[in-house]
Amino acid sequence: MQSPITTFDQLLTAARSGTCRVACIYPHDAGTLEALARFEAAGLGSVVHIDGADPAEAAARAVALVREGRADILMKGLVGTDVLLRAVLDKACGLLPAGNVLTHLALCETPADRRLVVFTDVAVIPFPTHEQREAQIASAATLCRRLGIARPRVGLVHCSEKTSDKFPVTRSYERLRCCTDELIVDGPLDLLCCLSEEALRVKGLESPTGGKSDIVVFPDIEAGNTFYKSLHLLRPDLHSAAILAGTSAPVVLPSRGDTAETKLLSLALAKMSLPASRMTEAHAAGA
Amino acid sequence: MQSPITTFDQLLTAARSGTCRVACIYPHDAGTLEALARFEAAGLGSVVHIDGADPAEAAARAVALVREGRADILMKGLVGTDVLLRAVLDKACGLLPAGNVLTHLALCETPADRRLVVFTDVAVIPFPTHEQREAQIASAATLCRRLGIARPRVGLVHCSEKTSDKFPVTRSYERLRCCTDELIVDGPLDLLCCLSEEALRVKGLESPTGGKSDIVVFPDIEAGNTFYKSLHLLRPDLHSAAILAGTSAPVVLPSRGDTAETKLLSLALAKMSLPASRMTEAHAAGA
Repeated sequence: MQSPITTFDQLLTAARSGTCRVACIYPHDAGTLEALARFEAAGLGSVVHIDGADPAEAAARAVALVREGRADILMKGLVGTDVLLRAVLDKACGLLPAGNVLTHLALCETPADRRLVVFTDVAVIPFPTHEQREAQIASAATLCRRLGIARPRVGLVHCSEKTSDKFPVTRSYERLRCCTDELIVDGPLDLLCCLSEEALRVKGLESPTGGKSDIVVFPDIEAGNTFYKSLHLLRPDLHSAAILAGTSAPVVLPSRGDTAETKLLSLALAKMSLPASRMTEAHAAGA
Repeated sequence: MQSPITTFDQLLTAARSGTCRVACIYPHDAGTLEALARFEAAGLGSVVHIDGADPAEAAARAVALVREGRADILMKGLVGTDVLLRAVLDKACGLLPAGNVLTHLALCETPADRRLVVFTDVAVIPFPTHEQREAQIASAATLCRRLGIARPRVGLVHCSEKTSDKFPVTRSYERLRCCTDELIVDGPLDLLCCLSEEALRVKGLESPTGGKSDIVVFPDIEAGNTFYKSLHLLRPDLHSAAILAGTSAPVVLPSRGDTAETKLLSLALAKMSLPASRMTEAHAAGA
């Protein structure tokens, strides 16, 4: 087992191993072009630019490239999120296997020690069902393991540490709690208790996460998005990266405000999230 | 009209005018004692310590003092939040007039310019109805006017700027939008668009808030609490203060982790939130 990747510098270094191919739809804005150029220059992989007069047709073509194994990662450039998602979610020709749950994983630095933590879901599933929440945790845990964290600690966010019928999400959390050799899940915990030993101590609480969650799960998109926007508002100096998961290949779907740095880190994260088999294929194809 | 109070320093200075009396239940922890001592030393008002063997009885006694006009502000010391709220919400002897909505107002500094913004509701109402949201806005707007902001700008937080039936809160927001001589309300806006001109520009949006909301309204307590905890996690250097509103007198209900500074600022905010009539009374009583 590799030693865990705990910083973005380590992520960029680790992502140099092997190669991969990115299919980017409409790479026309400066930030996307810069990210792709830096990705290629750093030897992380190669890029296929997907253009054409019709955005929906271009998106379908990019998705087809990935389905056919001629690209490993799908990326959105200057095209609507709706257009890209429609192509990804297409039942016949898309990238979401039947029964899979599409979710969003954001990798962000903690303020105190710039440790990497996966946050889900800040952008895709509005109000996760219990089963969707299980899938979010499974996708986030798979990503953590690719980053070398063998036994991820998962904090389940709520406004307090009490379970009650007034908050149905806390009943879901009760059923998700576990402490196995592969996974530690605890909640409800408020966001501070998920990420701060000190916060747990002040409240006189103990948690198997130890206030050092590797994964933070939000009750719904309103809480998740509020966190993500708070991060950008309050600490624009902290880096982040994000991918869609649940798909047969990682998808990078940047926001309008994302910097070239965020897009580059997201591409590196997407590459690290590729299964070993895919990486070998990619390697072979690149050789 | 006074010039608006836009910083905590200005708030502390303004709060020196007039006097008031604080009834504090079980002021036994170091943070509360320090806050009360500084409140008195700064000439902001006087303090009645409420003790006794039984917390519920002590809480009821403190509430009675406020009801009888012998204290102006109620504060929680080392006693359970449940105990204090039970006394406040008591139908016969409490502090919540029939038909009023109890809500929580947090005054926080913005990261860029340390401007004061009211956030609601991070702690009290789980899932506000449309009518409760109207009451939250009304309470926050009243507080803003006490701080000298004649025409508060209100940003209604959602994970995007689109209205849809998938998110019922956005339908409530549509009905709340207004632009009068007294109030500007706009939403749905994501948290960044509520508080950043730049974020609006990047998204190509216009909002009558101009990205400079004086009041930010969260869709529910999960989003609100996530913001509040994010603030403490990401920017512990930024100050904040909080009071309960909707009650017949302001209530200061600190969290376990709050510093003496936060408690002092909350007392100053509570004093500023007193209606002019109450301040006159307090002044007369103190004279």
